[in-house]
Amino acid sequence: MPQTLDAVLAYADAHLDDSLGRLFELIRIPSISTDPAYAEDCRRAAEWLTTELLGLGFDASVRKTAGHPMVVGHAPQAEGAHVLFYGHYDVQPVDPLALWETPPFEPVVKQAPGGSQIVARGASDDKGQLMTFVEACRAYKAVTGSLPVRVTVLFEGEEEAGSKSLGPFLEATADELKADVALVCDTDLWDAETPAITTLLRGLVGEEVEITAANQDLHSGIFGGAARNPLQVLGDIIASLRTPDGGVAVAGFYDGVSEVPEAVKAQWQGLNFDAKSFLGDIGLSLPAGEQGRSVLEQVWARPTCEINGVIGGYTGDGFKTVIPGKASAKISFRLVAGQDPAKIREAFRAHVRARLPVDCSVRFEAHGGSPAIAMPFDGAFTQSAAASLTAEWGKAAALIGSGGSIPVVGDFRHRLGMDVLLIGFALLDDRIHSPNEKYNLSSFHHGIRSWIRILAGFAELEKADQ
Amino acid sequence: MPQTLDAVLAYADAHLDDSLGRLFELIRIPSISTDPAYAEDCRRAAEWLTTELLGLGFDASVRKTAGHPMVVGHAPQAEGAHVLFYGHYDVQPVDPLALWETPPFEPVVKQAPGGSQIVARGASDDKGQLMTFVEACRAYKAVTGSLPVRVTVLFEGEEEAGSKSLGPFLEATADELKADVALVCDTDLWDAETPAITTLLRGLVGEEVEITAANQDLHSGIFGGAARNPLQVLGDIIASLRTPDGGVAVAGFYDGVSEVPEAVKAQWQGLNFDAKSFLGDIGLSLPAGEQGRSVLEQVWARPTCEINGVIGGYTGDGFKTVIPGKASAKISFRLVAGQDPAKIREAFRAHVRARLPVDCSVRFEAHGGSPAIAMPFDGAFTQSAAASLTAEWGKAAALIGSGGSIPVVGDFRHRLGMDVLLIGFALLDDRIHSPNEKYNLSSFHHGIRSWIRILAGFAELEKADQ
Repeated sequence: MPQTLDAVLAYADAHLDDSLGRLFELIRIPSISTDPAYAEDCRRAAEWLTTELLGLGFDASVRKTAGHPMVVGHAPQAEGAHVLFYGHYDVQPVDPLALWETPPFEPVVKQAPGGSQIVARGASDDKGQLMTFVEACRAYKAVTGSLPVRVTVLFEGEEEAGSKSLGPFLEATADELKADVALVCDTDLWDAETPAITTLLRGLVGEEVEITAANQDLHSGIFGGAARNPLQVLGDIIASLRTPDGGVAVAGFYDGVSEVPEAVKAQWQGLNFDAKSFLGDIGLSLPAGEQGRSVLEQVWARPTCEINGVIGGYTGDGFKTVIPGKASAKISFRLVAGQDPAKIREAFRAHVRARLPVDCSVRFEAHGGSPAIAMPFDGAFTQSAAASLTAEWGKAAALIGSGGSIPVVGDFRHRLGMDVLLIGFALLDDRIHSPNEKYNLSSFHHGIRSWIRILAGFAELEKADQ
Repeated sequence: MPQTLDAVLAYADAHLDDSLGRLFELIRIPSISTDPAYAEDCRRAAEWLTTELLGLGFDASVRKTAGHPMVVGHAPQAEGAHVLFYGHYDVQPVDPLALWETPPFEPVVKQAPGGSQIVARGASDDKGQLMTFVEACRAYKAVTGSLPVRVTVLFEGEEEAGSKSLGPFLEATADELKADVALVCDTDLWDAETPAITTLLRGLVGEEVEITAANQDLHSGIFGGAARNPLQVLGDIIASLRTPDGGVAVAGFYDGVSEVPEAVKAQWQGLNFDAKSFLGDIGLSLPAGEQGRSVLEQVWARPTCEINGVIGGYTGDGFKTVIPGKASAKISFRLVAGQDPAKIREAFRAHVRARLPVDCSVRFEAHGGSPAIAMPFDGAFTQSAAASLTAEWGKAAALIGSGGSIPVVGDFRHRLGMDVLLIGFALLDDRIHSPNEKYNLSSFHHGIRSWIRILAGFAELEKADQ
């Protein structure tokens, strides 16, 4: 098998220009999903990918949805571990167009101080990323005639437009798509030389809270002192949400929350994350979260409460001595594994109600609720993929977290019951969603080679099991 | 003198219809001060009043200002106490015109369950009120040929438009206008049968506070937990402004604040103020101010802190998981006698700065600062006017407070160094500033008679001093 692996890697190296040419073909299709004017281009991109998969021996087809189509492909191999690979072929709009140095849908390779860069809309997010997997499959097909494990591919066309069709589609095709593990290629390297697997994704509970006191706005001269001020009530509630040491004060909030294993913490320490410049870049210096925990732990592995918006009373120019009748806030909680969104929502509402003066009322509106995702750090797929990445990049793969949510991961986890490995080769400076989006040529090349190694590793894993 | 007083009162009674006719003449001049289209009408109203005063033997003239003119008149008598009477001849706009039952500038007397009402824009605020004094002077002039005390009259034409010319005018005419006491006729009776003197007016300090944390808006997934949230900082500060028992927690806030004399508190108790319906009418039931103090005390005689507006983060429809870079609030303090606006402003700013995380910054903007006004409850003019009002109405005059500010009172107090008696005959239900403004005919009639008695009382006061 090592000989086969070397041959497949050598094929990929030798045909990198061809791989790049195919990526350019895909990029040239302006598949902007939010703009209905590009619906036909989205369909063309789906058809282009389907043709590619068919050429690689996949049983592939374009699947209609209420929105843009999905592409589903099954590699003919029935044996071995079964992986579901996910990427999205749609891209963000390109405005402001004037800020692009080259036309967004005419990809070019530019020389830059850190190495060559593919510059175009979608070069990184997510056409460049998903094509690393397609080209890895191509190398296997060319060298061995088949893939080393069972592979199903799902390409979505609405990721940049809210993924509205994804949930219903997964429900309808659950039996067809369910695999042993899902691979999502839409995330970053740790840095340009260090591969990463994102194993923690925080969940989210959003709540809108409207406090009503008086049945009308009041003159603060006539009523000030006697009448309840809902902005004061809201301020008191906001203050009550946090403990003096930076924690969240809602009863039961930390129930079920586990500590990060010491080995993982030690690995994070080894990442040489620069907390000072992480905060310094945004003009801050003092970590605001739970005292005694590192910044990485605060944003990856600890739940939090954030006030996302507050409005009430007079907010225009000048001054108005009004006591408003109502005040409202948008408040969200980032969750970690072990926290139940529904329970957190109820605990928050109980917290607010317990602090409400008797003559005030409150209206809650739920906005989103998704649990956190945590891959087992020591799972077989995780460890195997980490070893493959480490072998390819020559640096230990980082098992990292992500503070934000990636909806498709929750869908795979909760609708299909699969673990998900988030492995991507993008970088924070790829300018995704912005003018002059780029993907390092080394991300593309090492990305292809990484998947070749990961699939080989998974094949070995299967054998070890048997 | 009692015989003279009776004769003057009898004259006023006998000529009430004539008095009403003159009020109607003034009302028919649409002297809307905020709308430049009515500038000529404002001038006509000033001229009309000047002509009236000249007819009563006053040395009267229209005085130009940068805005609408003032009217100043001096009664020829040089002896006795010197009072400065203030009223304003300008009125509010009339829109929405469709809601008026009769044309706003065509005054009518309508029969209503509580008695006859004069209905028109300005019937109460302030043409009806100021004409009570003019007609009182007319009755004296007709019966005795002169006024019982020395009288200066000042009529303003910009009260409904911000009184921009008043300060400079008072500065320029201080020597001419300075009297022993100022009488301002622009306030209410306690109820339709109970006269009142407003002796307490709260002051005001307004502050705008802008907290800056990060130098940009942040994604709460990526930064939530580690990055300081200025809406949380602001909420913490707002909560910190109040004590658990409803007081204000700013250090030194109550320095210099005196207790209301027991006698005055007892009198307030006797007013049978209905705190339950005062709060009930606005949908509240629980007094929000300092515990252990009555609602009247809370709004008339105690300082407070109100949050007048807060804005920060995302406040549109739906939800956005943003950690804003900035958050701001408009916060005001109502002051009572003994509190220095400048010191309160500084104490507040120190309170905020002391609670600011080291990597946040704050910007303050001052909005208005005026001290409270407190007339000595037991002053000679106050006691004399109270006795006169009590004699006229057959019910003890209430010495009340007002939670709001009346700028002209501060100007008289601080620019001219005069005590000010606020005596008016309007009612809360007069619909001032609204369609179908009215003034009870009994307010007009008893108002004229009240001034006749008050001037007689002031004349006796002067004699008693000599």
